[in-house]
Amino acid sequence: MTAGAALDVALAYHRACTSGDFEQAMRYVADDVVCLAPSGRHEGAEAFRAFMGPFAAGLTRAELLAAFGDEETALVMYDSDTTLVRGAPGAECVRVREGRIVEMRIVFDRVPFEAARRAAAAGAPR
Amino acid sequence: MTAGAALDVALAYHRACTSGDFEQAMRYVADDVVCLAPSGRHEGAEAFRAFMGPFAAGLTRAELLAAFGDEETALVMYDSDTTLVRGAPGAECVRVREGRIVEMRIVFDRVPFEAARRAAAAGAPR
Repeated sequence: MTAGAALDVALAYHRACTSGDFEQAMRYVADDVVCLAPSGRHEGAEAFRAFMGPFAAGLTRAELLAAFGDEETALVMYDSDTTLVRGAPGAECVRVREGRIVEMRIVFDRVPFEAARRAAAAGAPR
Repeated sequence: MTAGAALDVALAYHRACTSGDFEQAMRYVADDVVCLAPSGRHEGAEAFRAFMGPFAAGLTRAELLAAFGDEETALVMYDSDTTLVRGAPGAECVRVREGRIVEMRIVFDRVPFEAARRAAAAGAPR
């Protein structure tokens, strides 16, 4: 790991997000955050919460694999288990301004999540 | 970006891989490399070549978004266009030993690639 203000914020966000306290994590997210995700562009804190909150709520394990950054940018990769998928790694590149994340690009594979949702839907009572 | 031997190797690999010279990129990959990808575990240089070569061959644009590292570990995120998919970001966390990548964890979203392959198959002559 390297030091840097952006990395501190990214790690504080990550710790809060993976500790079950997503509202604490949102303290590190700017009101005008732009999140570029596999599902598209999510603009603003409310859209960010709607996108990321369900993932955070479903987390059962998170392991930080690598984290680096400088004053403005941080890059983290983690592995995670959620109630839907076991072994779901993700990577986040964040830009930080005044202690808050103003941009996040998140990369993960949607395939196992889509498969789990299809399986859950198929097994649901009709 | 931060300095470090692992980052140098990761960037040299990335430059070669995105320049159309995949065999040059393979010079930075250890014979006993282990690659953890969305599709599973690829062990050894031949398996790595079989997995990564087709992606590299299809690249039409690559843009490094962030790159950090230290002596042993590097983490990069990039955006890419390929002949199959436009706007396909990926992240790679690599461990380096003696100038070569011994471990790579690569994260990307397989959904657009699978959709493109299905579309291509549906449109192919029968």
